[in-house]
Amino acid sequence: MTSQALPFYFPAPRAQKFCSQCGSAITRRIPPDDNRLRDVCDQCGAVHYQNPRNVVGVLPIWEDKILLCRRAIEPRYNKWTLPAGFMELGETTAQGAMRETQEEAGAQIELGPLYTVIDVPHAEQVHFFYLAKVLSADLFPGPESLEAAFFSPGEIPWPELAFRTVITTLEHYLNDKKTGRFPIHHYDIPLPLPDPA
Amino acid sequence: MTSQALPFYFPAPRAQKFCSQCGSAITRRIPPDDNRLRDVCDQCGAVHYQNPRNVVGVLPIWEDKILLCRRAIEPRYNKWTLPAGFMELGETTAQGAMRETQEEAGAQIELGPLYTVIDVPHAEQVHFFYLAKVLSADLFPGPESLEAAFFSPGEIPWPELAFRTVITTLEHYLNDKKTGRFPIHHYDIPLPLPDPA
Repeated sequence: MTSQALPFYFPAPRAQKFCSQCGSAITRRIPPDDNRLRDVCDQCGAVHYQNPRNVVGVLPIWEDKILLCRRAIEPRYNKWTLPAGFMELGETTAQGAMRETQEEAGAQIELGPLYTVIDVPHAEQVHFFYLAKVLSADLFPGPESLEAAFFSPGEIPWPELAFRTVITTLEHYLNDKKTGRFPIHHYDIPLPLPDPA
Repeated sequence: MTSQALPFYFPAPRAQKFCSQCGSAITRRIPPDDNRLRDVCDQCGAVHYQNPRNVVGVLPIWEDKILLCRRAIEPRYNKWTLPAGFMELGETTAQGAMRETQEEAGAQIELGPLYTVIDVPHAEQVHFFYLAKVLSADLFPGPESLEAAFFSPGEIPWPELAFRTVITTLEHYLNDKKTGRFPIHHYDIPLPLPDPA
């Protein structure tokens, strides 16, 4: 062991080799009173459950324009996205969405209602987007964004958007603008079609 | 190590002592380009992010009655609940809600729309309840339920309900029944007040 920070870090993948409680090797088995394979420690008895993650974000509106950020990180480096990221322990979806907007765009916002709730089972995620009013045109994008900018509906860079949940949230918004009613939309993003190669 | 199953298992707690990737001891530190303490491995560089979990369930209606299950597990052993449990990898919130209804009540249902989305930050959870129509009065409660039964609105055992998200979901339902409109309700359950002792 060392107490020095390493020059680089990486997110631990889902696949586990060692028990987080006692350090022994992990076994894949169905625990008693369960019905699916888990990462189990047969030394100390710890069962390492894994669950989907929530991604929380905002659709920020400034006058008639939408705030987008160009990603400075993988996946989808250089693509445009709504401010969003993984929900953290101890916060609500709303608090997480505001935090991500601050971190990625440095935008001052007034959070509105929850707008889209999107199941993305192949990514093991649920995405939440809130409507929000941007309070000032001053933006201070953080290290995860190459830039942040406002787009009128006709200027949205559709082929350069990062994620299908961002595309569909924007589509719902532009459609709902016609009626002026913005109810919660809940839907699934199905598995992408396999490459026809 | 042994390849034998132990007589008992327990869910691994949030607090981690060893790296799931290389088995080395964990350090609590803020990784580069981050702003909060994480479980970090300074040997292999793995960062062990932790995120809130989703609980997915159903409000199942049979004629004018509501299906509840009496819990055979902790927490809230012996209390009544709507069928619900942790969302699993690879499923949608709807699929998870149907699975939990099958596992806990053995009820045949036709799933309706998403009804409540509830942030429970002190429990590090988000709860989702769907409306559903029960298709047959035959119930086959599984090992996590002591029993499953139907309750007319006047018979709901309010003081014996297991969770505040169950109570508030039932309250919304009984209230919406007056108008016949059942829109999605999204709200937070704030931290319980400290015991005045």
